[in-house]
Amino acid sequence: MTITSVSHTDLVASAAADVRAAIRTKSFTGHTAGLAAGKLQCNIAILPENVALDFLRFCQRNPKPCPIVAVGDSGDPYLPTLGQDIDIRTDVPKYRVFRNGALTDEVTDIRDTWTDDMVTVALGCSFTFENALLREGIPVRHIETGKNVPMFRTNIDLVPAGKFGGNMVVTMRPIPATQVARATEISRLFPHAHGAPIAVGDPAQIGIADLSRPDWGDAVEIRAGEIPVYWACGVTPQNVLLDAGLAICITHSPGHMLIADVAEDAETTILKTN
Amino acid sequence: MTITSVSHTDLVASAAADVRAAIRTKSFTGHTAGLAAGKLQCNIAILPENVALDFLRFCQRNPKPCPIVAVGDSGDPYLPTLGQDIDIRTDVPKYRVFRNGALTDEVTDIRDTWTDDMVTVALGCSFTFENALLREGIPVRHIETGKNVPMFRTNIDLVPAGKFGGNMVVTMRPIPATQVARATEISRLFPHAHGAPIAVGDPAQIGIADLSRPDWGDAVEIRAGEIPVYWACGVTPQNVLLDAGLAICITHSPGHMLIADVAEDAETTILKTN
Repeated sequence: MTITSVSHTDLVASAAADVRAAIRTKSFTGHTAGLAAGKLQCNIAILPENVALDFLRFCQRNPKPCPIVAVGDSGDPYLPTLGQDIDIRTDVPKYRVFRNGALTDEVTDIRDTWTDDMVTVALGCSFTFENALLREGIPVRHIETGKNVPMFRTNIDLVPAGKFGGNMVVTMRPIPATQVARATEISRLFPHAHGAPIAVGDPAQIGIADLSRPDWGDAVEIRAGEIPVYWACGVTPQNVLLDAGLAICITHSPGHMLIADVAEDAETTILKTN
Repeated sequence: MTITSVSHTDLVASAAADVRAAIRTKSFTGHTAGLAAGKLQCNIAILPENVALDFLRFCQRNPKPCPIVAVGDSGDPYLPTLGQDIDIRTDVPKYRVFRNGALTDEVTDIRDTWTDDMVTVALGCSFTFENALLREGIPVRHIETGKNVPMFRTNIDLVPAGKFGGNMVVTMRPIPATQVARATEISRLFPHAHGAPIAVGDPAQIGIADLSRPDWGDAVEIRAGEIPVYWACGVTPQNVLLDAGLAICITHSPGHMLIADVAEDAETTILKTN
């Protein structure tokens, strides 16, 4: 069998189902930023059923970093509320497998790892509100400059549940002072994608020492007249899962998201079937 | 010990904590409509831990009738994300206890019924968006006329999870044709309180035979120039719980809600503690 490899550029104009098909066949294993424009993209956490109730409680109590957009049945790899024929074992371009709190594998397929007690939780992603900011003419520096968004640990306590807890991770985007209010208004309309900012201005207020040294991602320039704005970040649940030291859990690789058939500006994340 | 009884009128100007105190001491056991203005009120479902994961999945898949606003720890009757010192065993004015799918008790205190495996789920309530409609000058007929909102079974399938499934229940409010778009816009801003309408106009489209004969609540007049507008209803999860025939579950009595300390227009339903 020959696998024909396709590039990110080849897929930019493709429909969500076609991008997923390329991902499923491993013709494409790259990052999904900018693909299937207008469709919801999701962070993924797959974990054993015996901790799923606590993890859902944790996400409910921390809805800005952990906005739940879908939950699968135990042992069932399909996510029908997010799209037609989505198989979570094959439809993410790259996965990370963690055992006892350590990264043990980065793979493009988890059919061999999937077990009958696994539960998939899909969480909203910042691509959604970034697209909305761009549509309204608000610049997003890391996209302009082809970098990864800068991410920082904060001193903001999460509300714990069971084994799950810790501090919030945020992203930072420099926004022109005159557009901060509008950026807040726009992102608030997307509760499934981290909602309005967590903080604006002085990084010290949320325990960030140095904006030029992000904990993950790339530093970006803050220009004259711009204010740093901080949003809750989907790296938060990944950290929390690691710290919980579960026997096994699986996440997407950063930037390598699940693409849903649901529109990113839909009122709910549930695909309408009647 | 003397219990001093207070009336609904006595409590209209009281703070949420004071209303809850009157409820906890059973000085007040009435309905909560119009009390603690501006605070979130919640539908309550209490059920055994072994079905809680499926019930949370069910609510996530049906967010318009079942918007989750809080989930307690197993066996823990306190709901700190909704307010200071909320004890779910005493702080609801009236409860319904169901065993094997049948109503067996209506009580004002469940301390004797509460067990260590019980999980509390709090769901958003239509009071929130009704208050928002009234603030913006959109009339709400059943409030104007001192009736209970009319509720109807529909033919809209719910997305099932485990034992939980069935059809959606909706409320109907006649809205002047010129204000339907605005009512939709306003209610869409409250995803934790059923969000935008499910349908507008012809009742037959969602399987309602006769608007003058609601399945619950009171019929209301639809005047010339008004259009019936249907919102997802919090009776939906109560029906679904009944149909599941659980060994035990407990709900609030209709209209007798839990009053939270969270503002009803807050971005999330999580009480800020830092």
